[in-house]
Amino acid sequence: MDKFKIDFAYNGKNFSGFQVQPEKRTVQGEIEAALFVLLKKKTKIYASGRTDAGVSALHQVAHFEAEEGIIAPKRLLDGLNALLPQDISVIKIEYADKDFDARFSAKRKTYSYYFYISKYTHALFDEFAVRLNDYADVNKMNEACKRFIGTHDFASFVSRKSGKTDFIRTIFDAKIVALGEGLYAFKITGDGFLYNMVRIIFGTLVQVGYNKILSEDVTKIIEQRLRASAGKTMPAKALCLERVEYK
Amino acid sequence: MDKFKIDFAYNGKNFSGFQVQPEKRTVQGEIEAALFVLLKKKTKIYASGRTDAGVSALHQVAHFEAEEGIIAPKRLLDGLNALLPQDISVIKIEYADKDFDARFSAKRKTYSYYFYISKYTHALFDEFAVRLNDYADVNKMNEACKRFIGTHDFASFVSRKSGKTDFIRTIFDAKIVALGEGLYAFKITGDGFLYNMVRIIFGTLVQVGYNKILSEDVTKIIEQRLRASAGKTMPAKALCLERVEYK
Repeated sequence: MDKFKIDFAYNGKNFSGFQVQPEKRTVQGEIEAALFVLLKKKTKIYASGRTDAGVSALHQVAHFEAEEGIIAPKRLLDGLNALLPQDISVIKIEYADKDFDARFSAKRKTYSYYFYISKYTHALFDEFAVRLNDYADVNKMNEACKRFIGTHDFASFVSRKSGKTDFIRTIFDAKIVALGEGLYAFKITGDGFLYNMVRIIFGTLVQVGYNKILSEDVTKIIEQRLRASAGKTMPAKALCLERVEYK
Repeated sequence: MDKFKIDFAYNGKNFSGFQVQPEKRTVQGEIEAALFVLLKKKTKIYASGRTDAGVSALHQVAHFEAEEGIIAPKRLLDGLNALLPQDISVIKIEYADKDFDARFSAKRKTYSYYFYISKYTHALFDEFAVRLNDYADVNKMNEACKRFIGTHDFASFVSRKSGKTDFIRTIFDAKIVALGEGLYAFKITGDGFLYNMVRIIFGTLVQVGYNKILSEDVTKIIEQRLRASAGKTMPAKALCLERVEYK
């Protein structure tokens, strides 16, 4: 068998998430349908991780296998981009080593959560970012980001719907980047993320920005290992998987 | 009468342009309808200039008058943002001097035209940017930008539908800015722009990028004063009025 590594982008707006579900439009479902046309065989793709309904990706990574020599990466790339709908685009396809696994070989993932600070909804930014009220203190939020860096038990920052029992993850970097005009990205890099984790972390940062909790409280919330201690799950539309790193 | 200066943003996607037209949804029409509710009187707004159907603005500026003391800028700002649809947002309203005119007092305008370079349509970028093929040479395009700087007769870069006869405009700056991931903005600042001028200038830069014409040819095209010499009118969706400067 040939193993392929595929790097692709999608706009989450019109998908019921990444993972195949019966009767639902999903990213995985669309890609597997296109692969079926090209390879004439049911082919399952394995991504670095799922993304929720409404979440976009600039660089999601997956792997899949096909009969040896049946198709070259370049033809796969052209074929998939010709067949896929406008809201999924394949950026790169290459042969992968036999032991490559898009999920288990992933070393670092980076997500961006977009927000803007304004008293009013913004006609352009609100398409892909959430609004924080104009009294939000972005410096305090940026300060609080540092509390997440390191290896912690993130049980406070996972949706109860998750079936996981291991909540220990390592965050390599977390910061807020100003993009101009009151628009910002919260960027977080870690070895992996739990279900809804970035959206709950950002919800907690919003509480810091609104002066409802202090930066120090973030450390306490982490230690409590209690979902109810953390902030709310922020909307999916502002979340984007930016990058998955390997090797 | 009180004179107000209003700074607002809009997403051009669902508008038939800026200027009021019967039976069409326009930016001016929506703002004047909201002002009618607030001021209980038909009130005309005068913008720095029209934008075409599909063109967005980060900071469009207009002025209008209201009966003296009838409403304060802050109440107008709250009221308009409460009444306007999601794709128009008012950023700032302030009192203007009696001699202020959003169109005739404007000194500099800056437009951005967004594009990306890729063999394939991009799921996220294609929402607001046009695609150039991967053989487009962005360095040559950036080089050719300089040919537009200065005071020129832009008769080659105006749609024949324009009723104008004075085609002399001054371009203060024109350049291409890399935004990462193959995404770029062509930014142009001038004392004013003719109908479709930015879109035709960008269409001409695309010809340079595709090696169909040389950078030197741009100067010849300017001198020819002939619409047919220049490139095609590029799509409206990638154009955004970024800023209007006064004083």
